[in-house]
Amino acid sequence: MAGEDASGPLAGLLVVDLSRILAGPYCTLVLADLGARVIKVEVPGGGDDARAYGPFVGGRSAYFLSVNRGKQSISLDLKAEADRAIFEKLLTRADILVENYRPGTMEKLGYGWDQLKDQFPRLIYAAASGFGHSGPYARRAAYDMVVQAMGGIMSLTGHAGGPPTRVGTSIGDITAALFATIGINAALYHRERTGRGMKVDVAMLDCQVAILENAIARYFATGQVPGPLGARHPSITPFAAFACADGHIVIAAGNDALFRKLAQTLGRPAMADDARFASNDLRTQNHEALGREMEAALAARSCADWLAALEADGVPCAPINDVGQAVGDAQIAARRMIVESDDGSGGRFRMAGNPIKLSGFADPATHPRAPDLDADRVAILRELGVAE
Amino acid sequence: MAGEDASGPLAGLLVVDLSRILAGPYCTLVLADLGARVIKVEVPGGGDDARAYGPFVGGRSAYFLSVNRGKQSISLDLKAEADRAIFEKLLTRADILVENYRPGTMEKLGYGWDQLKDQFPRLIYAAASGFGHSGPYARRAAYDMVVQAMGGIMSLTGHAGGPPTRVGTSIGDITAALFATIGINAALYHRERTGRGMKVDVAMLDCQVAILENAIARYFATGQVPGPLGARHPSITPFAAFACADGHIVIAAGNDALFRKLAQTLGRPAMADDARFASNDLRTQNHEALGREMEAALAARSCADWLAALEADGVPCAPINDVGQAVGDAQIAARRMIVESDDGSGGRFRMAGNPIKLSGFADPATHPRAPDLDADRVAILRELGVAE
Repeated sequence: MAGEDASGPLAGLLVVDLSRILAGPYCTLVLADLGARVIKVEVPGGGDDARAYGPFVGGRSAYFLSVNRGKQSISLDLKAEADRAIFEKLLTRADILVENYRPGTMEKLGYGWDQLKDQFPRLIYAAASGFGHSGPYARRAAYDMVVQAMGGIMSLTGHAGGPPTRVGTSIGDITAALFATIGINAALYHRERTGRGMKVDVAMLDCQVAILENAIARYFATGQVPGPLGARHPSITPFAAFACADGHIVIAAGNDALFRKLAQTLGRPAMADDARFASNDLRTQNHEALGREMEAALAARSCADWLAALEADGVPCAPINDVGQAVGDAQIAARRMIVESDDGSGGRFRMAGNPIKLSGFADPATHPRAPDLDADRVAILRELGVAE
Repeated sequence: MAGEDASGPLAGLLVVDLSRILAGPYCTLVLADLGARVIKVEVPGGGDDARAYGPFVGGRSAYFLSVNRGKQSISLDLKAEADRAIFEKLLTRADILVENYRPGTMEKLGYGWDQLKDQFPRLIYAAASGFGHSGPYARRAAYDMVVQAMGGIMSLTGHAGGPPTRVGTSIGDITAALFATIGINAALYHRERTGRGMKVDVAMLDCQVAILENAIARYFATGQVPGPLGARHPSITPFAAFACADGHIVIAAGNDALFRKLAQTLGRPAMADDARFASNDLRTQNHEALGREMEAALAARSCADWLAALEADGVPCAPINDVGQAVGDAQIAARRMIVESDDGSGGRFRMAGNPIKLSGFADPATHPRAPDLDADRVAILRELGVAE
């Protein structure tokens, strides 16, 4: 639709995006970062619900701005005839349709995959929903919090005997967004070979099960239900957070050689010869005793001191950064992981950048601002040859 | 290399996989689930380090089995001339090379992207590393625990005033695997159009920043550093875990209408007319008071009773499942999210399935078992026309 450019491997592709809030919009954010043109089709009036989520920057939702940069917007009432005609014109040009409605909603509108696939055989239709488009819960609403609870990750996160703990970002939405984006890209490759699109059906709950890795392997191997692990890796030791004089750091000495180095750096070389700590398995079995010995040594100096000493000796370690420290890190800057746009009121707004670094394509430090509701209506209708 | 089949959109593609443990192998697991053929090239002797991670099923690592199903294995010493010749023959047939070495390792072997790109112009070279292939920390080792600490997610996970808390799965590895898989698939699409491969450089730390969503938007909008949120959503209320008579459940009543329904179901309709709880923003400001009122009502009955009542009234809610409950859920079974292979000793081994459900492709309930070290050597050498 728009002229092709060298903005990424997906340049020249058009994404029509009916999605709201996070799982769908995060998927189309990644597609936009890869060069695709994304047109948000929003409900008249309020548009994407996330537009109302505070805090606000220059009157615009910071959350919305960061998840929708580089996209365009048109508001269409998919129950009104004239707007349906515009939407269908858009579909004739679309390569990809993304939606994150509750299953059944698109069918009621007449735009379910089964209704579209014959008319638009090249269309890739991607649905990111809570429970997926099949199974007994298909029609139920789900949210990040719901799938984090049902999928098992909350049972692994937190401290034994402590209160329930949610992962501190919406990992339920984000993993669904990422798996959907993989499906869309694989479908694009396949369409180049066959000329045909397909439906990509990704459920947030399914994705939570897909990322259980160590815990699910352990459960199926032993039948034992894994519990919350605090700040510790389940099977590698020492690989956890430890208290120093003024806070906590992470130490990840995952093999015998690193453990020996660590014992030296801590000034406790005998620790490496202790029979209780002779192998990773033994260290894992005796992790409480080991943690006590390590923290007895670590208590003598500050986090900064220990990090410097451990780094100098080649023992993997890290500060536990807050968000301000994380985004201020030199490596994050060097990797261009903080980008910006104008904020629509004369200032600049910063956001996370694109973590997929590709040879041969620019990795821009600035992006077009997320669109105001319906901002691109006139230009889009002109392109479609629709008079209004 | 192998004959094309209808196993997925990536059927007919060959992935040469030098990666170990999790970030790389999880990426190639997703590629295999999409139909690609994956050949693990492993170091002679022990192979992928994950082969040694307990617990074991029939003498094989459960963890290794679940992340490497459906792949093949050949062991090659990339410092020995004869094995290098075999590896280079493999590269002439490869569509994709995946590695998760520390940056610089492939260059020392003579197989860095800059060394390969002219000889193999169609090759897609994907690197998943801790800090990426550029920037001041590029050569440092990183592990999941390190990037969870540095990237900010640990500062958001857990309870205020409580000990540091790691996300209970290796989200640092897994998000890097998913972003790398997106980059590879986008590169495949681009190669179909241009005939040329590219390098995909994904850093675990970058991915942690990319998934900070709400927290990073909040920080850049207000300058305030977000803290740990317990089991609560930062800006939607009530959207958290709440105590019932015999445990906790999650309730996600994200708008005024749902909050009104919730107040009815709890037998406290006046709650919906309380000025402190009149809007989502007010409920978020007064979440402690609201939580106390809700839990005073919830204490009267069991989790199961409340879940049934809330579901009947259409209030989004969920049990906090442990891993056993999660994998036993009817929806997970209906979505074929638990699959199996033989375990190599006469039994069956269960694993998480593929969450990318694609129209027109089978979603098999059984998969070939993860390969033993070097299991496919003879067949691969025969295909390559190498006598040994």
